[in-house]
Amino acid sequence: MNNYLLKITFLGTEYHGWQKQKNALTVSEALETAVKNALGVSVSLKGCGRTDAGVHAINYYCSFTADINIAPESLRLALNSVLPKDIAVKKAFTVPKDFHARFSATEKEYIYKIYPSKTHNPFYENRVLNYKYPIDINKLNEAAALFVGTHDFSSFSATGSSVKDKVRTIYLSEFTQKGDIIEYRVRGNGFLYNMVRILVGTALKYNEGKITLSDIESLFNGYNRSLAGKTVSGAGLYLNDVWYGEEIF
Amino acid sequence: MNNYLLKITFLGTEYHGWQKQKNALTVSEALETAVKNALGVSVSLKGCGRTDAGVHAINYYCSFTADINIAPESLRLALNSVLPKDIAVKKAFTVPKDFHARFSATEKEYIYKIYPSKTHNPFYENRVLNYKYPIDINKLNEAAALFVGTHDFSSFSATGSSVKDKVRTIYLSEFTQKGDIIEYRVRGNGFLYNMVRILVGTALKYNEGKITLSDIESLFNGYNRSLAGKTVSGAGLYLNDVWYGEEIF
Repeated sequence: MNNYLLKITFLGTEYHGWQKQKNALTVSEALETAVKNALGVSVSLKGCGRTDAGVHAINYYCSFTADINIAPESLRLALNSVLPKDIAVKKAFTVPKDFHARFSATEKEYIYKIYPSKTHNPFYENRVLNYKYPIDINKLNEAAALFVGTHDFSSFSATGSSVKDKVRTIYLSEFTQKGDIIEYRVRGNGFLYNMVRILVGTALKYNEGKITLSDIESLFNGYNRSLAGKTVSGAGLYLNDVWYGEEIF
Repeated sequence: MNNYLLKITFLGTEYHGWQKQKNALTVSEALETAVKNALGVSVSLKGCGRTDAGVHAINYYCSFTADINIAPESLRLALNSVLPKDIAVKKAFTVPKDFHARFSATEKEYIYKIYPSKTHNPFYENRVLNYKYPIDINKLNEAAALFVGTHDFSSFSATGSSVKDKVRTIYLSEFTQKGDIIEYRVRGNGFLYNMVRILVGTALKYNEGKITLSDIESLFNGYNRSLAGKTVSGAGLYLNDVWYGEEIF
């Protein structure tokens, strides 16, 4: 038995996220079908985390064990030749048997893209949030700076999540102008369900003058989902990378 | 009667080009439907040129006359509110009655995008040509430099075109590295059917060592469609802008 790790990238528009579901096409299902078609084996992929419908990945990691012996680069080429064009394997590795794409992860980084304009841009559709109000990037960064550190992020999590420990540490949280797009980059040791989308929604709520900085600070001291911002569209969200301790993939 | 000029942008993936056709969705048809839905009038749009299926436009110009009196900015907003998300009106103008988006044009500029990689990129699908061979950008520019000037471009035109005068003047023809994409920019007083795609195909043929620079020069002196390069995919092609003499839109 070998444990294979795949570093993949995907455009999430056509998928109902990563995780297998009934009656909905997901990225893991498309990839398992590709493994079956390319290698003739049925595998169960373990992903580095769930992603929501329409969310994209610059780098996503998943692993599977199988009783096959194929060189990683041959595996990569075989999968790319049968995968749909909106998913690609960037690299393949063999990893120790106890490696798990989710539990072995130590840090994750997401990017969220915002296009501030009253007119929609056809090339950004399903890829960037079209935000119709004026943006003050300095205000966004005032809010973003508050997210850095170790906090209870309950107020920034979708209701109904079963995760109990809602304390996470954020290392980087910053909005940057990139051409006509504003890019939010956030890196931490873990993220709650919908957390990045609610962090962005909260920074935008502050930009609109509907919440103060001390309101935002108060959210860490007591649960108040409605005071935090709304969950912005998944279409602007990209998993950018995942770190695995000493390992570099 | 007013003559309105629209500066639009579109992602061409879902369309069979600009020009109206039976049994195929085209950009002009989508836009005429939007005018009908927004203003209640049936108009006949005159475009700045045909574009092929799957070809995109950063800036495309079209005009229509109608017995209405609406301020250009109101027209723009009304159309954007009913247009499909892959088409947007960037600006609207009133122009003199004799203005024609195609016949009044004095120069046009196209961009062609190439992603040189053995692995496909999900985010570039339908937008950038995935070219699987190694690229030497200096070689591409050696070929591109030959296209500048006034030449008979018959060999760089699709067969079956009814246009008689095949002499055109190219002012700018250059490949530039932009991140992981190679961008070809070409500006001229006019272009034959498929001409930009064949110019790019010819530069790539030279890059692959299958044609010499003197072969390319000889193409201007006698028709030889098969010696020129193949017609590369329309999905990498963007109409970038059109000039109208003294007028700036």
